[in-house]
Amino acid sequence: MGEFDLIKRYFVRPAPAGSGVDLGVGDDCALLRPLPGMQLAVSTDMLVEGRHFFPTVDPQLLGHKALAVNLSDLAAMGAEPLAFTLSLALPGVDEPWLAGFAQGLWALADASACPLVGGDTTRGPLNISITVMGQLPPGQALLRSAAQVGDDIHVSGTLGDARLALEALRGQLHLDADVLQRCRDRLERPTPRLALGRALRGVAHAAADTSDGLVSDLGHVLVASGVAAALWWPALWDGGAVSPDVRAQALPLARTCVLAGGDDYELVFTAPAAHRDRVAQAAALAGVPVTRVGRVVPHGPGAPLVRVLDEQGREAVGEWGGYDHFG
Amino acid sequence: MGEFDLIKRYFVRPAPAGSGVDLGVGDDCALLRPLPGMQLAVSTDMLVEGRHFFPTVDPQLLGHKALAVNLSDLAAMGAEPLAFTLSLALPGVDEPWLAGFAQGLWALADASACPLVGGDTTRGPLNISITVMGQLPPGQALLRSAAQVGDDIHVSGTLGDARLALEALRGQLHLDADVLQRCRDRLERPTPRLALGRALRGVAHAAADTSDGLVSDLGHVLVASGVAAALWWPALWDGGAVSPDVRAQALPLARTCVLAGGDDYELVFTAPAAHRDRVAQAAALAGVPVTRVGRVVPHGPGAPLVRVLDEQGREAVGEWGGYDHFG
Repeated sequence: MGEFDLIKRYFVRPAPAGSGVDLGVGDDCALLRPLPGMQLAVSTDMLVEGRHFFPTVDPQLLGHKALAVNLSDLAAMGAEPLAFTLSLALPGVDEPWLAGFAQGLWALADASACPLVGGDTTRGPLNISITVMGQLPPGQALLRSAAQVGDDIHVSGTLGDARLALEALRGQLHLDADVLQRCRDRLERPTPRLALGRALRGVAHAAADTSDGLVSDLGHVLVASGVAAALWWPALWDGGAVSPDVRAQALPLARTCVLAGGDDYELVFTAPAAHRDRVAQAAALAGVPVTRVGRVVPHGPGAPLVRVLDEQGREAVGEWGGYDHFG
Repeated sequence: MGEFDLIKRYFVRPAPAGSGVDLGVGDDCALLRPLPGMQLAVSTDMLVEGRHFFPTVDPQLLGHKALAVNLSDLAAMGAEPLAFTLSLALPGVDEPWLAGFAQGLWALADASACPLVGGDTTRGPLNISITVMGQLPPGQALLRSAAQVGDDIHVSGTLGDARLALEALRGQLHLDADVLQRCRDRLERPTPRLALGRALRGVAHAAADTSDGLVSDLGHVLVASGVAAALWWPALWDGGAVSPDVRAQALPLARTCVLAGGDDYELVFTAPAAHRDRVAQAAALAGVPVTRVGRVVPHGPGAPLVRVLDEQGREAVGEWGGYDHFG
């Protein structure tokens, strides 16, 4: 089976009508037609076997996740999906694997109205590289640099479940089968918060997705905005941002999962206190719970970027970092 | 050195003013502003060590080539570069390698007015994945499906030099040092024919770049257009589309280089005979020689897609295929 047949069989479909795609897979380039006057949002993520997923992962879940992590970047910007490209390095032609991967990929692409418009396939160590394009009205993007002192800090969904699954899959701890399944689902089938991101346009100031972990991703926002943050541990722990599965763990592990877990692909965002009602409306509209977990504060010289405080406003925990691929 | 420092040091630069880039590297997404009403052209190519380049290749040349092969897809569509993203899997942090790679990449990006706006870096077997975006007026793209019976077939530059270098580097033949250097330059520093592609808008019907080889890439055009082609071997050989370096080789090898060589990143395109003067003007404007080498013919049932004919119109050579990564 030749390279081009392979691509055709699994990855070519006609673009849906009215989707902004004038020409899909099969020519030197795809041709897109963003809505007039819109800004184009572009992001790219590369997934490597052994680094971002286990060699034994279900290919259907991998297809889902490879696209989900990219769509999550659009969500964190408040952009609507337009289309994506896929480059795949494969050690060989494994048709059941390809069929499963394509199925997971297409299901999320269809659900997100984000058609595949181009790609490349080559032989090599397994590598999945996706570039996603979205659109949004100019000036409405949720920039990392837009956090302001006094803003509330909010997070969507729950944090730490994905990391808990990862620890269990690495053999670091035992989880009951039902707990493992729930957490593993968060790790392997993350939900990009596209509807929430869109609903937060004009409501939130700054946003990022929690791909690397809450403190790390919030840290990117803080650095870009020249501010710091106080996170309230009780608000995180008791306020709804931590699942019962993570709350059932020993505290040091649970804290690591919540503050530095990564792979949750929730949104962490800042919004003025005057917008609390509108944040709640956006959360209701998107059907995603949102928890207020801290505040943006001035960044004093030599002071930490993120302080995690207890009920009495005392430092609750020490230093927390995110996940760094070269760290 | 952390992942983010690494990215910053080598791959972050402010976007040039007036470039259509509202926000570059560093947020969840880049933000682009295509010219109003323009169609967006998107292409992606993945380069894998040992497959697309030798492990010993000069990283500066590799940086050039990784972007060049993507820009070549824009050229084949007649699109102008807008921006690109880069995903890199690296076995480790090798700073001299990164510095060289970035230098080659930036030099071509600057020369092509195509800024880097986003990316991803991870640890893994060396893999370079680039997605390039361009723009062009709607309806003016040079589609593979637009070739018409009676069209002339043209090629730009010379064909086969890159393949000749590849054979020599693989130890299949000896080339004198100066010949090797010239051919190797074509293999390792291909020139995307962006100016020619743009100049051919409204002049040519269909186009593709010769990444896989003349017959293979022309074949994609023919299949997409439902037509076939007659190539005139004497027009190729004596008309200017073959360099003296390739002409100096034994004929069977030279034919393989010219017809199935690949890696030249020239344009093969079809245009109506009535546009011969305009093709010549486009070539002059772009500063790239163009040679007329065949004609688009009807595709009879069971007939070959591409026939290569001699002076008397007889079949000059047998079956010619392109390069297929899974073949």
